[in-house]
Amino acid sequence: MSPDAGSHGPGGEGPRVTPRASRPAARHLERYADLFATRTKVMKSSAMRDLMAITERPEVISLAGGLPDTSTFPAENFAAIMARVAVDDCARALQYGPTEGIAATKSCIVEVMAAEGTHVDADEILVTTGGQQVIDLVCKVLVDPGDVIVAEAPTYPGAVPAFSAYQADVVQIAMDGDGMRVDLLEETLDRLDAEGRAPKFIYTIPNFQNPAGVTMSLPRRKRLVEVARERELLILEDNPYGLLRYEGDPLPTLRSLDGGDFVIYLGTFSKILSPGIRIGWAVAPRPVLDKMNTGKQGVDLCSSSLTQVFVATYFAQARWQDYLETLRELYRRRRDVMFEALEEHLPAEATWTKPQGGLFIWATLPEFLDTTDLLARALSRNVAFVPGRAAYVDGRGGSSLRLNFSGVDEATIREGVRRIGAVVSEQIALYGTLTGSGRDDDLARPAATAAADDGDAAGLADVLHLPPPGPARERRDAR
Amino acid sequence: MSPDAGSHGPGGEGPRVTPRASRPAARHLERYADLFATRTKVMKSSAMRDLMAITERPEVISLAGGLPDTSTFPAENFAAIMARVAVDDCARALQYGPTEGIAATKSCIVEVMAAEGTHVDADEILVTTGGQQVIDLVCKVLVDPGDVIVAEAPTYPGAVPAFSAYQADVVQIAMDGDGMRVDLLEETLDRLDAEGRAPKFIYTIPNFQNPAGVTMSLPRRKRLVEVARERELLILEDNPYGLLRYEGDPLPTLRSLDGGDFVIYLGTFSKILSPGIRIGWAVAPRPVLDKMNTGKQGVDLCSSSLTQVFVATYFAQARWQDYLETLRELYRRRRDVMFEALEEHLPAEATWTKPQGGLFIWATLPEFLDTTDLLARALSRNVAFVPGRAAYVDGRGGSSLRLNFSGVDEATIREGVRRIGAVVSEQIALYGTLTGSGRDDDLARPAATAAADDGDAAGLADVLHLPPPGPARERRDAR
Repeated sequence: MSPDAGSHGPGGEGPRVTPRASRPAARHLERYADLFATRTKVMKSSAMRDLMAITERPEVISLAGGLPDTSTFPAENFAAIMARVAVDDCARALQYGPTEGIAATKSCIVEVMAAEGTHVDADEILVTTGGQQVIDLVCKVLVDPGDVIVAEAPTYPGAVPAFSAYQADVVQIAMDGDGMRVDLLEETLDRLDAEGRAPKFIYTIPNFQNPAGVTMSLPRRKRLVEVARERELLILEDNPYGLLRYEGDPLPTLRSLDGGDFVIYLGTFSKILSPGIRIGWAVAPRPVLDKMNTGKQGVDLCSSSLTQVFVATYFAQARWQDYLETLRELYRRRRDVMFEALEEHLPAEATWTKPQGGLFIWATLPEFLDTTDLLARALSRNVAFVPGRAAYVDGRGGSSLRLNFSGVDEATIREGVRRIGAVVSEQIALYGTLTGSGRDDDLARPAATAAADDGDAAGLADVLHLPPPGPARERRDAR
Repeated sequence: MSPDAGSHGPGGEGPRVTPRASRPAARHLERYADLFATRTKVMKSSAMRDLMAITERPEVISLAGGLPDTSTFPAENFAAIMARVAVDDCARALQYGPTEGIAATKSCIVEVMAAEGTHVDADEILVTTGGQQVIDLVCKVLVDPGDVIVAEAPTYPGAVPAFSAYQADVVQIAMDGDGMRVDLLEETLDRLDAEGRAPKFIYTIPNFQNPAGVTMSLPRRKRLVEVARERELLILEDNPYGLLRYEGDPLPTLRSLDGGDFVIYLGTFSKILSPGIRIGWAVAPRPVLDKMNTGKQGVDLCSSSLTQVFVATYFAQARWQDYLETLRELYRRRRDVMFEALEEHLPAEATWTKPQGGLFIWATLPEFLDTTDLLARALSRNVAFVPGRAAYVDGRGGSSLRLNFSGVDEATIREGVRRIGAVVSEQIALYGTLTGSGRDDDLARPAATAAADDGDAAGLADVLHLPPPGPARERRDAR
């Protein structure tokens, strides 16, 4: 994406294509198209990534990303760690490392897992290039085109492009305040079994789910692990935020409940240290881990030795839990400020989740509002969020939005939510004007059409590569 | 891979599987097997990666890896760069970045490309997680199962696992001292055309080819670019070593000859700065680059901001060409030492390439010697190389080996080559004893069988995931 992608507007070929009439290559656009692999026909761009380019404009308040506040990491400690690396480990930091990861870094991972109440051995770990690579590698070793992946509804918007690149058929299971509805999961598994289409894995984010913010209850966790064992199904447990709990008691990981037979665990340093180091990890049953290692060899040989050594040197200071506590206090306050701002600025018809941790709140507006259209209007007021449809594969989620509270300070959260609230109120008023009512769902389309007439709104769904609107009936799966 | 993988010997389940009788998961090995994607049936582990675990033992002299000598990078400069990053850019270094790469890093890439005599614009660049990721992403956007990729014979051993993960049909074209035989390429393209199987791309390493060490001549380059244009075929130009030229004049990149319509260019900082930072790049026709960006979003979101900022800060010192000159002088001497040692220690029947740059020499032994078996014997003498079969998809290359001269000092090169020479001489003598002759190719198998009777040699091909021996007729494609 070019840095100025946002300025091209939504009417062109998408934000990553800068028109250059003089390039002879432009003549061959169609020819290249013939060369592309079948998977590219369904490969999706990430709405979040596209938004990231748009929200690079400094005047935009972004509540869209899943960014930790890396300005909280003391620059002098960064320099101290790197000075230590220079003295002790410079040549190794700059060299290739083993595909499975550097031993000292795997020891840090064992320590983080222990803090999650989960015992793992170092040789059960594959160090990866961020948690995202775990999702990619799990798909690489398990998913053939057309294979079923079960995920939550809504699910992590960044998983959708990973799944689509493997031409998976993603089936989403509704959540409630206790997380994935395992009863609905079992019904779905029965149906899929009857069709001879057992899923390759069940993808879940049990803690402070992205985007819904809900946490899977202990009975649900136990039942989910039982279901996987009974049916001999693999689970991919994505747990980036488990240690970012602001209230309530920690719950055991699925990995610890299962013991490691059916659970592939995804962890990452992104939210407890830094996403810029791109270091995550997988803990998996050994035959699966072995294949993932082979896959990683072809993909990027090994993850950065420099950033792995940075992690190991940082953990050797034995103060990582202190920094984590700093983050927890900071994000807890920001979350509470966002709760207050939502109370103040969103209309009475709006609802939102009350996460006990993590980075995100999921808000749901009256059904006649489409948050993809709303985003275009919000961007014109210099505020951004992730529209709910990015978290579904089938166009649902159109009246919901994901709000991040970790990336900006309290005053900015208040101002951002105020701007969103203003746009929402205007649209509700416009809807009332057009229909004489604020409640008639059958008339939702005229409101959406009115929004689409706006130059800023036209085609934003295309720019963000969102699926078309789907049936409204399940729009409030998550609350 | 567990750090002690090498000690398990070749008779077990492979170097990455540590037997643990107590694990219940072991019972489910077959069940997991049913879950694996079709691609895993042909996914290959990298012989180099497996060797890397084996050669971690400090007593082993490894001429196997493609390791630059990172101990040459001044530790005090590393610390100075990172201190500067801490002051100027700490929060950004620790944060997510744009998928396409940080602008300041792309400017460095423009500068490196200019030093290669090639003009590119920053918005034609995708920053990647090492050069390896370019190969993976090009396959992701172009290759369906069964699609043809054309490569050189021999080819980069690390590309073989990348291609196999996409179930590509790799067709290898012989080289001579002027690089890929473009006349043979055209014959092959005619044949493939007749079969309706035009390749998705032609993969070539024009400079100091890995593993063969040969450089494509200017007439060949011009003709290759013409062939691609005439037939509207894409080329993947892999150029990690172009700036590591020790003699002779630089030749233009295929990208500069073509102008960017049909050439995808792969570059990397691995060999001119550090592989541990995992920063490479692609320059590609815009529609291809766009798809690669989408693919990267699903794969790892973005490459490390920290290491990208490290690159930018290093380049801001404006001394990168000085360091490059240091590397060139060092590696030139090491190459010359290896030439001398090969003259001294290899038998008269052996031949080897005389690369003008890069990291590798490709040696070819009498045909009755199998270098995979020879490696097992060499490892027992604590010296390692890459057996030639790792550079072919069809079992050819069995009498050749790749030797790296950049990773260890001159005395170690001499000692390593001496040990290899001793093993080769022994095997030639053994062959003479068994056959009464050192020259009868039809009797090559008994020698190989004798080698396989040795405990160290048994099954090493399995451990290294090498293809079975193939027809001998084209074993000397590269010289």
